[in-house]
Amino acid sequence: MGFEVLKEKIKQSTVKVKIAVVQPIDKEVFKALKVFCDAKLCHFILVGSSNIIHREAKQIGLTDYEVVNAADDKTASAIAVSLVREHKAGVLMKANVSTDVLLKAVLDKESGLRSGRLLSHLIILARDNGRFLGMTDGGMNIQPNLDEKVDIINNAVKFFHGLGIQEPKVAVLSATEKMNPKIKTSFDAEHLIERSKKGDIPSAVVYGPVAFDLAVSQRAREVKGVADKIPYDADIILVPDIICGNSVAKALIYCAKLHSGGVVLGAQCPIILSSRADTAQERLYSIMLGIMQCIPS
Amino acid sequence: MGFEVLKEKIKQSTVKVKIAVVQPIDKEVFKALKVFCDAKLCHFILVGSSNIIHREAKQIGLTDYEVVNAADDKTASAIAVSLVREHKAGVLMKANVSTDVLLKAVLDKESGLRSGRLLSHLIILARDNGRFLGMTDGGMNIQPNLDEKVDIINNAVKFFHGLGIQEPKVAVLSATEKMNPKIKTSFDAEHLIERSKKGDIPSAVVYGPVAFDLAVSQRAREVKGVADKIPYDADIILVPDIICGNSVAKALIYCAKLHSGGVVLGAQCPIILSSRADTAQERLYSIMLGIMQCIPS
Repeated sequence: MGFEVLKEKIKQSTVKVKIAVVQPIDKEVFKALKVFCDAKLCHFILVGSSNIIHREAKQIGLTDYEVVNAADDKTASAIAVSLVREHKAGVLMKANVSTDVLLKAVLDKESGLRSGRLLSHLIILARDNGRFLGMTDGGMNIQPNLDEKVDIINNAVKFFHGLGIQEPKVAVLSATEKMNPKIKTSFDAEHLIERSKKGDIPSAVVYGPVAFDLAVSQRAREVKGVADKIPYDADIILVPDIICGNSVAKALIYCAKLHSGGVVLGAQCPIILSSRADTAQERLYSIMLGIMQCIPS
Repeated sequence: MGFEVLKEKIKQSTVKVKIAVVQPIDKEVFKALKVFCDAKLCHFILVGSSNIIHREAKQIGLTDYEVVNAADDKTASAIAVSLVREHKAGVLMKANVSTDVLLKAVLDKESGLRSGRLLSHLIILARDNGRFLGMTDGGMNIQPNLDEKVDIINNAVKFFHGLGIQEPKVAVLSATEKMNPKIKTSFDAEHLIERSKKGDIPSAVVYGPVAFDLAVSQRAREVKGVADKIPYDADIILVPDIICGNSVAKALIYCAKLHSGGVVLGAQCPIILSSRADTAQERLYSIMLGIMQCIPS
């Protein structure tokens, strides 16, 4: 499985998903939009400064799109959220707006997109071996507690089910596979495995604590003598906090050059929260991930 | 600068460093030792099960080495430590012994290698652009406080001075470059920069908070509009805790395939704490890093 496989699935789907894009301004965003429009993979509603949007759209040759004018970032966010509430869009996408501003609109108790579940961020990385690696939560929940981690895992597991992976393997990340009472995540792993056994995390295998190498390398598991206990790579890595998740993901993107996309799960619709520094390709992959949540897998 | 440059420096040095190796058993360790022996880069004292050591040494064709027999891991660790105390060895190297057992011998108040400074782990990664990236502390201090972080930075800075980098740039890692009162490392950065200004971290530039991408990518800094404020890549990344440091380093090693070596600093001698899953090459680089601390830069 890789992003090319996703693209094929989206192409073959009869559902044409509508995406509300908040404040598209820079050329990288428009490059991504154009690829989808040209391939007729989805439909875009662009919300923001209509002058800039029309200018950039014209310059890059984007034709098939709608525009809703908005005076500023806050207004654009609120309008895009309302489009989802009114079922005029199925996916929400952040462009040149700060995450804080967009999430404030999403989390608004009156007019937002809360579904009763915790919102969480999932990054999907395409590994060299053709597998997807999910990492959560490196974008949203700063230091989640154990109940929140159950929600974060479930959001990611549900996403993987949507990709057709029936029983994703969820590794609870730590610095070592050994129980160390001084390392808090040792207890996290114990607790989350227990919760999984109780049925709180259905259709997934939760295991850990594991160090990163054990989650991604059969060779490391063999050398460390845990290959019997852990005979598989992780599909999803649960990180302890936002700094760890953000840093590991960025190390994989910037240094390992892994293709990646990010999506926020747990709201009334998938939310694409790409970073200001993302390339057009990264945006493409994030858009695909968002669309995947709206079409039958 | 890369590991090849280090090798040249070691070759050209007139000082022949002695390394006490604790419990060398597997073939990967002996492969590394042989490279150094053949090139006459240093001298090894192998401490552990002498039967196994002689058998493996013979098999790989290792000739120039000393052996001190030890019945078990604990004894081997204690003997190796005493060799350093008696100035018979200048570097301590972990082979097939658990980190905990070796560090217990190192940290023994009576017979260990304490120097009054905090011990900390530094991993050195050779980036594609030819620069070394130090990451600390992903191997030893689980959740260091701010005073300990000052020591951890100073250990790494001193190491970089030894590599000939006069004023290393130290990035305090976070999930964003923005001050966020909910993210503890925002305050860490503020405090550590203050300590640096007071002279507690001499001959270094401490900055932050920064997300990983800003520490390693000029493009990310430009897109996020901080290229003026941060016009350089980091030499050293201070991670908030062991899980983050361990995971980011392993992501860079296992997925970005960066060459790396690790060393423990702050004791009476450099300590090479390579992981059980390290390859011969990773061990080579760690040995070089240890030797570099014993020869004039």
